[in-house]
Amino acid sequence: MKFPILIINFKAYYEASGRRAVHIAKAAERVAKELGVNIAVAPNHLELALVAQSVEIPVYAQGADVESPGAHTAHVAVDNIKEAGASGLILNHSEAPLRLNEIAKLTARAKAAGLDVVICAPDPRTSLAAAALSPHAVAVEPPELIGTGRAVSKYKPEAVVETVQLVGRHFPDVAVITGAGIESGEDVEAALKLGTRGVLLASAAVKAKDPYLKILELAKPLAAGPP
Amino acid sequence: MKFPILIINFKAYYEASGRRAVHIAKAAERVAKELGVNIAVAPNHLELALVAQSVEIPVYAQGADVESPGAHTAHVAVDNIKEAGASGLILNHSEAPLRLNEIAKLTARAKAAGLDVVICAPDPRTSLAAAALSPHAVAVEPPELIGTGRAVSKYKPEAVVETVQLVGRHFPDVAVITGAGIESGEDVEAALKLGTRGVLLASAAVKAKDPYLKILELAKPLAAGPP
Amino acid sequence: MKFPILIINFKAYYEASGRRAVHIAKAAERVAKELGVNIAVAPNHLELALVAQSVEIPVYAQGADVESPGAHTAHVAVDNIKEAGASGLILNHSEAPLRLNEIAKLTARAKAAGLDVVICAPDPRTSLAAAALSPHAVAVEPPELIGTGRAVSKYKPEAVVETVQLVGRHFPDVAVITGAGIESGEDVEAALKLGTRGVLLASAAVKAKDPYLKILELAKPLAAGPP
Amino acid sequence: MKFPILIINFKAYYEASGRRAVHIAKAAERVAKELGVNIAVAPNHLELALVAQSVEIPVYAQGADVESPGAHTAHVAVDNIKEAGASGLILNHSEAPLRLNEIAKLTARAKAAGLDVVICAPDPRTSLAAAALSPHAVAVEPPELIGTGRAVSKYKPEAVVETVQLVGRHFPDVAVITGAGIESGEDVEAALKLGTRGVLLASAAVKAKDPYLKILELAKPLAAGPP
Repeated sequence: MKFPILIINFKAYYEASGRRAVHIAKAAERVAKELGVNIAVAPNHLELALVAQSVEIPVYAQGADVESPGAHTAHVAVDNIKEAGASGLILNHSEAPLRLNEIAKLTARAKAAGLDVVICAPDPRTSLAAAALSPHAVAVEPPELIGTGRAVSKYKPEAVVETVQLVGRHFPDVAVITGAGIESGEDVEAALKLGTRGVLLASAAVKAKDPYLKILELAKPLAAGPP
Repeated sequence: MKFPILIINFKAYYEASGRRAVHIAKAAERVAKELGVNIAVAPNHLELALVAQSVEIPVYAQGADVESPGAHTAHVAVDNIKEAGASGLILNHSEAPLRLNEIAKLTARAKAAGLDVVICAPDPRTSLAAAALSPHAVAVEPPELIGTGRAVSKYKPEAVVETVQLVGRHFPDVAVITGAGIESGEDVEAALKLGTRGVLLASAAVKAKDPYLKILELAKPLAAGPP
Repeated sequence: MKFPILIINFKAYYEASGRRAVHIAKAAERVAKELGVNIAVAPNHLELALVAQSVEIPVYAQGADVESPGAHTAHVAVDNIKEAGASGLILNHSEAPLRLNEIAKLTARAKAAGLDVVICAPDPRTSLAAAALSPHAVAVEPPELIGTGRAVSKYKPEAVVETVQLVGRHFPDVAVITGAGIESGEDVEAALKLGTRGVLLASAAVKAKDPYLKILELAKPLAAGPP
Repeated sequence: MKFPILIINFKAYYEASGRRAVHIAKAAERVAKELGVNIAVAPNHLELALVAQSVEIPVYAQGADVESPGAHTAHVAVDNIKEAGASGLILNHSEAPLRLNEIAKLTARAKAAGLDVVICAPDPRTSLAAAALSPHAVAVEPPELIGTGRAVSKYKPEAVVETVQLVGRHFPDVAVITGAGIESGEDVEAALKLGTRGVLLASAAVKAKDPYLKILELAKPLAAGPP
C-alpha cells in the first residue's frame, strides 16, 4: 500500500451506482495520473468487477465476509474480491461494523491474498485495537462527523492526533489515515498536517457535480510532498 | 417473471468469480436462445454489474439489504441492484437467511422497482409464510440436500408436493419452484412433474467442465412444454 | 394459551430491572386474581427465573435463540426458558426481529416444549406470514406507534382490522392480538372491539407510578366478557 | 477484579438451568469461602438475577447488548446487569462474538458502572487487540479446544505464553487469563504456571456429578499462592 493516499468510498450512493461507478472511477484515475498521486476507489460490491476492469488505479472492496469461496449465497469472499480485480479491502467501516474475531481473520486472509487492508475505527482507543491486528492502515473516523461536511481534521483534530500517537507508539508499522466530513482540499491538507498518511472520503467526490474537478481539488495536497 | 424458469445461482463459487462469471452467464444465454427457454443467472454481488452488461437474459441478485441507496458502506440496495442492470432478486437463501420483517420490506420494494422476487424457504410451512408476502415465486429448498447431489425432486418429493399444495391453496398467484441437489436434466424434469414451475440450482452448472453442455442438459425439460 | 389476554412486556426498562421486576409482576398477579382475567408478564431475560419463581401467573420470555441447550454462551435456549419457569415466548418483536427460518424453528420447538407462542409483526401482510407458522397468536404492532402513547387501536385501527380479517380467513386457529401505543383501559377496550383477542403493552404498566392501579385499569376491559 | 480467579461459565447448559444454576453457584461459593480464593460464576441470562440474590461471590453476565436500558425487547443492558446484582461481564466469548466497536463501547460502559470486564479472544493477536480496549482481563481461548477436554494449558501452551508476553509488553495493566478444555486441577495449575492470572472454564464444573467436589479440585491451585 502506497502513501499518502486518497481513498474514495462509493458506499451505496445511487450517484455511484451502475455505469456512474465507472465514470467516477475514471475521473479518479485521471487525477491520479495527472498529479502522480495515489488514489484508490472503493465501489459498491455490485460494481466491483466492472470498475476493476475499467481502471488501472487501485480498487478496494468496501467489505468482505469471512467465508471462503464456495457455497455461500450473497457472501463476498476475500479470494473472490482479488479475483474480481481488486487490490485492497476496507474493513469495519462504521456503517458496516464487523466482529473483532472476523476482522482478525479477514485481515490475515486479505494480506495473504496480497490485498491492502484498511481497518476503520470510530475513536483512538478502538483504532489502537484495530492496529494490533496488523493491517496496512487504520482509518479513524468519528461516526458523528461522517457525511456532515464538518471535517474531522478541523472539528475533532485531537482524535486524529491521539490516534497517530497511540498507534505510532505501539504499532509503528501501521499507517494512520482519517476520514469523516472531509469536503475540501483544505480539509485533506489539514488531515495530513495532523500526521496522517491519507484520507478516506465519500460524498464530497461521489456527489460532486463534476467528480473530476472535485477529486482534483481533494488530491492536490497529496502532491505537495510526502507528509 | 416468466415460467417455467431455470435459475443458476453462482453463489460465492471461485469457479464463477471474476471473468468466469461472464463466461458461465454467456453459456446460459446461449442455451436460453437455442432452446427458447427462460434462464436467469444470479452472479455474486461482485460481478453483478459486469454480468448484467454482458448478457441479455435476466440477471438476478443473490440478496439485498434493506437500506435505501445512500451512505451505507458495503450494503447492497434494491434500487442499486436495478441500476446495476439486474431484473430479479433472490431473498432468504438458506445460506443468507433474512429477518421476516426485512423479507417483507425487500419484497415490496423490489416489486415496486420492477424486479422479479424469489423467496427461498427450507420447508413447506416456511414456504407458505414466504408466499404470504406476495413474491413472484417461492423456492422450497431443504438445506440438508443443498450441494449434496441428492435432488430434492427425488429424495424429498413430498416436501415439494406439500409446498405446491399449501401455497396453491392459500396464495395461488405465487409460483412454487424448488432446488437443492439438482444435478441432471432428469432431476429438473422430476421437479416440474411434481408441480413446480422451475428450478434453482448452483454447483451442477457452475462447476461443470463445460457449463454450456451442462446447462443445455438441465434446461431441456423446460423446453418440453409448459408444466 | 387463554384469551382474552393482557401481556405486559418489561423490555429492558430500568424501571423493571432487578427487584422491581418482581414488584411489577406481583402487581399484575394481584390484578389477574382480583378480576379473574388472563395477564402474562414478560420480564427481561435477566429476571426471568427470579420472576417465574415469584408469581403464579404466566411468565413469557421476550425472545429466544435457536440453539439447543448446551455450550452456547450468552444464548437463551427454548428448553431453558421452560426450565426457568416460563410458560410462553414472544418472538420477533420489532425491537428484536428474527430471521424467518428461525421463527419457524423456534415456534415449532416452543410448542413442542408446551410454551405459548406469540409472534409479533409490523403490519397485516407480515402478520399473515407469521400466522402461517402456526403460533398460538400473532401480535400486530406498527413500529412507528410503539412507545408513542398513540394507541394502534385508535390511530391505526385499519391495520388491526385487516390483520384480523387476513389471519381469520387463512389461519383461523391463530389468535390476533395487538399492541403499540396502548396507554389506557379505553385503548384496550378499543383493541378488543376491533376483533383482537388481547393486547401487548409495555411502558404504560412498567413506567406507571403505581403499577397495580395502572394494570387494574388496563385489564378491566378483559373482564367485561369474552370478545 | 481480584486475581488469581476461577470463572465458571454456565453457558446455556441444561445442567445449569433453572434451580440447578443456584445449586452450582452455591457449590462455588462454598469452595471460595473454604479455600479463601476468588471464584466468579457466570450463569445464563435467564438465571442471572436469581443467582445474584442467592450467593455472595461475584456473579458475571455472559454477555451484553450495547443498547442502554429502555424500550429494547430481549436485549440485555449493562446497567440492568448491574441492577440484577452482577459485578462483572464476559464479552466476546467465541460462542457469542461481538463487533469490535461494540466491545469498545461495552467495556467503557461496564467499567463506568463498576463491573469487572473480561474480553475473550481466540488467539494472541486478537487478545492484544482486546487488551487495547482496557478491560480488566483478556481471556485467550483457542476455540478449537473449547469443550474438548484437551486443556489449552497443555495442548497449546505457546498461545498462552505468547498472549502473556504480547499483552504484558503493550498493556501491562490488563491481566491475562485463559480457558478451553480445562478439566482438572492439574490443568488449572499448568495455566497459572504459564503466567496467567486465572482460568475460565465451563463444562468441567457444570456437568460434574458433584459440582462442589469438582470445583474444589479446580480451585485448589489458586490457593497455593499468588502466581
